[in-house]
Amino acid sequence: LAPDELSIIDRYFRPLAGEGAFNLRDDAARLDIPTGCELVVTADMIAESVHFLPADPPDTIAQKALRVNLSDLAGKGARPLAYVLSAGLGPAVDETWLAGFAAGLKRDQDRFAVTLLGGDTMSAPRETVISITAFGCAPKGKMVHRFGGQAGHALYVSGTIGAGAVGLALLKGEHGVWDRLAEQQRDVLKTRYRVPEPRVAMASVLADFASAAMDISDGLIGDCDKLAGASRCSALIEAERVPLPDGLAPVWDEDLLARLLTAGDDYEVLAAVSPGNEAGFMEAVTKAGVAVTRIGGLRGGSGPTQVLFRGKELSLKRRSYVHGRPEAS
Amino acid sequence: LAPDELSIIDRYFRPLAGEGAFNLRDDAARLDIPTGCELVVTADMIAESVHFLPADPPDTIAQKALRVNLSDLAGKGARPLAYVLSAGLGPAVDETWLAGFAAGLKRDQDRFAVTLLGGDTMSAPRETVISITAFGCAPKGKMVHRFGGQAGHALYVSGTIGAGAVGLALLKGEHGVWDRLAEQQRDVLKTRYRVPEPRVAMASVLADFASAAMDISDGLIGDCDKLAGASRCSALIEAERVPLPDGLAPVWDEDLLARLLTAGDDYEVLAAVSPGNEAGFMEAVTKAGVAVTRIGGLRGGSGPTQVLFRGKELSLKRRSYVHGRPEAS
Repeated sequence: LAPDELSIIDRYFRPLAGEGAFNLRDDAARLDIPTGCELVVTADMIAESVHFLPADPPDTIAQKALRVNLSDLAGKGARPLAYVLSAGLGPAVDETWLAGFAAGLKRDQDRFAVTLLGGDTMSAPRETVISITAFGCAPKGKMVHRFGGQAGHALYVSGTIGAGAVGLALLKGEHGVWDRLAEQQRDVLKTRYRVPEPRVAMASVLADFASAAMDISDGLIGDCDKLAGASRCSALIEAERVPLPDGLAPVWDEDLLARLLTAGDDYEVLAAVSPGNEAGFMEAVTKAGVAVTRIGGLRGGSGPTQVLFRGKELSLKRRSYVHGRPEAS
Repeated sequence: LAPDELSIIDRYFRPLAGEGAFNLRDDAARLDIPTGCELVVTADMIAESVHFLPADPPDTIAQKALRVNLSDLAGKGARPLAYVLSAGLGPAVDETWLAGFAAGLKRDQDRFAVTLLGGDTMSAPRETVISITAFGCAPKGKMVHRFGGQAGHALYVSGTIGAGAVGLALLKGEHGVWDRLAEQQRDVLKTRYRVPEPRVAMASVLADFASAAMDISDGLIGDCDKLAGASRCSALIEAERVPLPDGLAPVWDEDLLARLLTAGDDYEVLAAVSPGNEAGFMEAVTKAGVAVTRIGGLRGGSGPTQVLFRGKELSLKRRSYVHGRPEAS
């Protein structure tokens, strides 16, 4: 690694530091919590060759590292405040890479109104590893959990499901129905894999109207199992209602549908909403500019989510996506 | 990696979770800040072959990862509250390693009154990387900084300087005057490298009496440069006053002395104390059970710390220790 830690911090990270970071010139930061807020904390680590590809543009790696954390906060009803970055930089990291990485952070700091609070930088012997801890603020007593859903509550998802998975398949050169898409649509999906779209605008809507919520990072079905399990319910999803990316919907290939419903990298929100809150939820989420779709609901009992497709059980080879493990064949 | 992420969390990390962690069954945690406190945040990442040796016992790796963070908090006058752990686990990590690692965390959680708040676990392709973000609580308005020291303030260090560096030399089989130490003394120094002793008990003393402070992680002299620089002063250290580990003091070998004063892994506290606060500081720190030594003071002007040994400038080949870089020859 050519540039040393102090010059990296000086040149690339100091300009990103915000309130309480003391210009990254102290050993620790002070995080001021806005009045009436509770502090929500999340941490996600991403690694080269596991969560991103070595050839990915460095600004997108930075954005992904930050956004997977912002997505977690959004799913808990928390608007982002700040983050701490620990970076183990591999031998391939040079000034150009660092400049791109910092530019990606800056862009998202501006867009999502967060600042860098502190962190740690070191040379990693081989793969680059980026560890972010992010801080968010939920109105006092209104943090949203995986638990809290009840039988009779509707299940909604934001955006579309499967875009990240198709983007990864395209980036890996895997053939499939996506080959039929226009080049521009394919580019949108590739970008979506590299740079997810955290539903930050939904945070306050969830805090006000959701009984339970989480971001979908390991596949819709497996994550729905988690939300329903934590809420001591079971879930029913009607697969034909699940919104798929433009150009892929409607997909009447059941194998592909099953794959998209259990693939990773969606970073959309899954939310349970009580019948009394549905109208308010829809109004608020529309105002926030986020498209949501009702895909099913919570029921009594326990056990895995039942996934119906045109009234019949959809056959699933897996329920969740595990990063770093090859796609199930 | 044999055990998967969920079973690792279940078996090893869930028992460590505290208040606000929701049993590690949610996507984020809630951190409650005690009344009258300001939240202090620090992050340190340690990596195999850089900050610890592959053969180090896993409980000591866990303790080191946590303690380097607690040491940062202590130097800022903050008592620890909780921490978030992100772990990239290399291929050599198995159930035995994980059990040892968790046992090390548990031991230190009990000793330092902190709990696990959340985190992330993944398989790392090669080296194990442990990233911790730790949270502490300083009395409102009393967080201690590197800045704040003034000309005329005395400089104190806790404990001894150089124990970690000698411990590392012993573990690497490097020969030196430490070969003359009794086996038990050598073992103490090796343990000290692996498991530093964060001065948590000093936190409230620093908050009450220090004008500036920091933990010494990259060598006393270089870190003193940082404190003096941030305080817009210069510093003078009388090297013969610097407390060295038992059996090595007094060292009249100037090369060795220079090496110990600029070696890493001390994790002691360097504090500036105004003349009016020295009596109170000494009384409080004695009550806290931590030995401190006055080694010099802050002066006007700027520039690197002047290091005198018996009245003459001590010759230094470097001022700081950089992890992962070979010892200066």
